[in-house]
Amino acid sequence: MTVGLGSGSTATLIVRALGDRAADEGLRFIAVATSVATAGLAHGLRITLRELDDVEFLDLNLDGADEVDPQFRLTKGRGGALLREKLVASAARRRATVITPEKRVARLGESSPIPVEVSPIGLHHTERRLRELGPTKTALRLRADGTPFTTDGGNRIIDCWFPPVDDPARLDGLLGKIVGVFETGLFIGLCDVLIVGHEARAEIIENDTNRSPSS
Amino acid sequence: MTVGLGSGSTATLIVRALGDRAADEGLRFIAVATSVATAGLAHGLRITLRELDDVEFLDLNLDGADEVDPQFRLTKGRGGALLREKLVASAARRRATVITPEKRVARLGESSPIPVEVSPIGLHHTERRLRELGPTKTALRLRADGTPFTTDGGNRIIDCWFPPVDDPARLDGLLGKIVGVFETGLFIGLCDVLIVGHEARAEIIENDTNRSPSS
Repeated sequence: MTVGLGSGSTATLIVRALGDRAADEGLRFIAVATSVATAGLAHGLRITLRELDDVEFLDLNLDGADEVDPQFRLTKGRGGALLREKLVASAARRRATVITPEKRVARLGESSPIPVEVSPIGLHHTERRLRELGPTKTALRLRADGTPFTTDGGNRIIDCWFPPVDDPARLDGLLGKIVGVFETGLFIGLCDVLIVGHEARAEIIENDTNRSPSS
Repeated sequence: MTVGLGSGSTATLIVRALGDRAADEGLRFIAVATSVATAGLAHGLRITLRELDDVEFLDLNLDGADEVDPQFRLTKGRGGALLREKLVASAARRRATVITPEKRVARLGESSPIPVEVSPIGLHHTERRLRELGPTKTALRLRADGTPFTTDGGNRIIDCWFPPVDDPARLDGLLGKIVGVFETGLFIGLCDVLIVGHEARAEIIENDTNRSPSS
């Protein structure tokens, strides 16, 4: 089995749990990591890693999300790995999103900005065009030391606070049309099952409306 | 006046001509280059250069094209600088495309592949999805030494040979929706005037249908 491993705090818990099961129960699988950080963690847990381009497809992708709406659409990219996360999710036959209950929102944008991965060249021009789409605020993501955050691919992130989004697919299309925008943190059609972690149990909610493009 | 300078063989002639006029006639302007190669050439000719992000907008962009159709839509990117060329053209108030007569085609794709700038991560997956859009052939662009060509932004180019394209805007939208695709060599709404160089004269054809987004 080939498994995609997301990035961020929830994904860290998933990777640790998989590492434990591999060590304790001999669970065998090949993993594709969505960030340098996740790859490092998985490597330390002796999980076998492959590059995305070395696998034909993934059987399962396991990742978190910043927001999930009732149509199983997601906001992701708080951790800055949105492009690789989207690439890996797109290559997976089944996509499971693991969240805590407060991540469920009526409309995307309610609790999180929408991160947009952009070219480092022409950054100000790209940000000006993003602003024309009506966010209440945009901000170039910075590191703790005040220098621009750089993605694993060498790009920048502009966080866009939009009023709660009625039509995420339309917004995603408008964002993607801007020259200099490489990818957005809106994940549409990339969640087949939602796993909601409660205090003492996990709630599993199948997305019956989502037809996987590879099935 | 702030002028965008394209890349490739035609742009090289333009930059040399501008350099001559600056030296001989004292023509003064600030230039934004679309590639490291063009910047180097302009610097050698003592043309004053600025980064795209250091200018608010450009008054004029001067660039070549691989193909131009009757609706002033272009195929560009043979030189591999398509992203920066598109960023600079998008920031310009007036865009002039300088070509030789044989670059005019009835439909884009007749004589040139459509270059697509893609993420180096997940390259095979992205190429597989590009193939699903029906090109007769795709090829990762290589350097003379056989290693992958890398854009100034650190990305890769997949050249896509499509049958002559009836609806370039639609194809551009479909290409852009693929995760891992950063930009395409289809330039739509980015040519305000066509300058066709003939043996002894230049033919100037205004694009009356193109409303500049900044005007």
